[in-house]
Amino acid sequence: MVPHLITALTGPINELEQRMLDAMPAIERWFRLEWMEHTPPFYTSVDLRNAGFKLAPVDTSLFPHGWHHLTAEMMPLAVQAAMAAIEKICPEARNLLIVPENHLQSPSDVADLAQLQRIFNLAGLNVRVGSIDPELKKATTFQLADGQSVAVEPALRVRKRVGLRHFDPCTILLNNELPAGPPGILEDLYEQYLLPPLQAGWTVRRRSRHTRCYEEVGKRFGKMLGIDHWLIHPISHSAEAGKTKARRMEALRAAVDQTFSKVRRKYKEYGIGEKPFVVIKADDAGDEAGVAVLRDARDLPTLEESGQLPRSGHWLVQEGVLTQERVHEAVAEPVVYTMDRYVVGGVYRMHPGESAGLGGRARGASYVPLAFEHSTQLPQPGERPGASAPNRFYMYGVVARLAMLAASYELEATDPEMLELA
Amino acid sequence: MVPHLITALTGPINELEQRMLDAMPAIERWFRLEWMEHTPPFYTSVDLRNAGFKLAPVDTSLFPHGWHHLTAEMMPLAVQAAMAAIEKICPEARNLLIVPENHLQSPSDVADLAQLQRIFNLAGLNVRVGSIDPELKKATTFQLADGQSVAVEPALRVRKRVGLRHFDPCTILLNNELPAGPPGILEDLYEQYLLPPLQAGWTVRRRSRHTRCYEEVGKRFGKMLGIDHWLIHPISHSAEAGKTKARRMEALRAAVDQTFSKVRRKYKEYGIGEKPFVVIKADDAGDEAGVAVLRDARDLPTLEESGQLPRSGHWLVQEGVLTQERVHEAVAEPVVYTMDRYVVGGVYRMHPGESAGLGGRARGASYVPLAFEHSTQLPQPGERPGASAPNRFYMYGVVARLAMLAASYELEATDPEMLELA
Repeated sequence: MVPHLITALTGPINELEQRMLDAMPAIERWFRLEWMEHTPPFYTSVDLRNAGFKLAPVDTSLFPHGWHHLTAEMMPLAVQAAMAAIEKICPEARNLLIVPENHLQSPSDVADLAQLQRIFNLAGLNVRVGSIDPELKKATTFQLADGQSVAVEPALRVRKRVGLRHFDPCTILLNNELPAGPPGILEDLYEQYLLPPLQAGWTVRRRSRHTRCYEEVGKRFGKMLGIDHWLIHPISHSAEAGKTKARRMEALRAAVDQTFSKVRRKYKEYGIGEKPFVVIKADDAGDEAGVAVLRDARDLPTLEESGQLPRSGHWLVQEGVLTQERVHEAVAEPVVYTMDRYVVGGVYRMHPGESAGLGGRARGASYVPLAFEHSTQLPQPGERPGASAPNRFYMYGVVARLAMLAASYELEATDPEMLELA
Repeated sequence: MVPHLITALTGPINELEQRMLDAMPAIERWFRLEWMEHTPPFYTSVDLRNAGFKLAPVDTSLFPHGWHHLTAEMMPLAVQAAMAAIEKICPEARNLLIVPENHLQSPSDVADLAQLQRIFNLAGLNVRVGSIDPELKKATTFQLADGQSVAVEPALRVRKRVGLRHFDPCTILLNNELPAGPPGILEDLYEQYLLPPLQAGWTVRRRSRHTRCYEEVGKRFGKMLGIDHWLIHPISHSAEAGKTKARRMEALRAAVDQTFSKVRRKYKEYGIGEKPFVVIKADDAGDEAGVAVLRDARDLPTLEESGQLPRSGHWLVQEGVLTQERVHEAVAEPVVYTMDRYVVGGVYRMHPGESAGLGGRARGASYVPLAFEHSTQLPQPGERPGASAPNRFYMYGVVARLAMLAASYELEATDPEMLELA
């Protein structure tokens, strides 16, 4: 089934698309030069929002999930990118250990993990799964409906190395957000590659840092392309943690006001008739901590009283970016997967029945992923903008790679070794 | 349309397939380590023959043609591999010049060139085509039936660089076999990357050297896998150039006898009931110089008298490898395309109506290319051997990469800079 893009393929976004298609060789060269200076995060998934007048990343996961949504056509690309990544990091590698999320439960968790294991196995590694979940005491095999299975064993720490019984990996692939901070078992590993590094976890990570890095990347990219970087960048303000609840709420209110005010100015500048809204996220936690949508600054007290604010001491207020994309009747949000420096695939996250696209991931939304159309990784330069899904996907791939580049800056800024040097 | 492999998916070849599937991580690691020491040829196409009891490469082109046969599914892989290649060779690259064969004529020549241009354009380069054909005096646009076109301009040499008017490439991609030797316009280029290097042309290249390199590679690979390397290697002997015609024919006869005798011994060892045959090729020219099939050493004088020997002063006699593969009724020979270190696609070259698979490319055969099945780049480790096209294609990709590795050894052995050091 091929998603049918309705709103997405019309409107002013086509100008941006045209610019990117025209500048394709310059854009690719710009990325090549960036990757000479910066190491791409091992893998990411980037949530995008296409408002018709702007296209922006709203979330960059450094422990991406949903690999099972990649279609059979996308798999060879992911495998080839995985091969390229391994060649660079550790060509002598034989064994790779995947550390999954704790509490694997749903069939989709297992299917996701099975696909990730398959990608690295096909890239030429012995791949096993080692859990750091303290509740997992012995090897457990999870069965999938299609007959596949994934064996998950408790990860073992033996002196300076992590592995499994009779399995000594040279690389450890983290696919665990580490919500409770870096566990002892993974600390002070100097003999093995740990990817992504521990500072990618939420104990160190801040959305606001990512956003600042993204703004820097977006400005430079916008200058190269000759566009206002707002067209690819959501405005945001962080509300710093205060000592008291009142102080925290004051900081949040200020951030909300600043964001609304800047967005209004931009809407006016571009003659956009829509009503702006903002999204409040935890600065130091993923979307599972909650995402609140605020359509009017005056509703903030109500939001607070009803307990709908994300569970966090400090927040990031982000410009809400409307989602104009629909597949049939449902709101469709593109998610782009990267590995090494390559875009390896994309899916639509679907919100069936939801009327207007929310800027954040709405709570309780159900996800019906859809693959992008066949071989849409490749733009078709001759085509008129807005006329072809491949071209739209090229633009998505560019913006996703900008977010990936921002994540690279971010990980450099929090690299303990770099901090020691500084 | 999906090719239906008949003979190919049964028989002893399945043992070899099973070994390769079982050893997949070891094989991939082996290649990774090889590529740490050796530079892969920029691109190749490798002709394979599957005899049911053995699988061997019979021709490795360093100026591959037929890119237009790659399907839409394979294109993203080719583009991603091209990106990886450019990143390594010249990340600052903006402009790439393709030097095509002289005398472009047929629509398939033009479609091939258009696809090659498209691959590197989509990898993020400005790509133009500069011909070194002395008969091409001015820019010429070739139209394709589907509306595409390719502009070919005369390549210009300005002091130490080659380019076009207002187009100064940093990399020059040779897609020209240089049958008449390296033209002056391409010699002594020290400021630009010339890929593949001039010694890849037939003035320097010898099939016998490639074969020796391949035997070395095959032996080491066979040892790692625990197999007789004959299962992936065609026996061959070169007939050195003699001063007189009588001497040359004597050398050829000796090479034919040696080859037949070794092949017979192998057939006996493996209990193969087929009648061996050999193929005579020019040692210093591509298949366009002619390929002669010899079923009995006693027919050699007849072959010579009838003028059917390849046009060359010295020959390579190669073990004929039967082609047991059929798509419908036609003989199907797999051709695997590589770029950088990756397998990017494959096609079947078809010989409709031909009864028995010849070891070489028969003269006058018509070619009906077919794509391999959908996403067959990826093996399916769970499947029983012979049961799935993807697994067969994995084995083809492995053997093609062995031939590519041999080409890398070969280019190193003839690298003028390395020779100076030696």
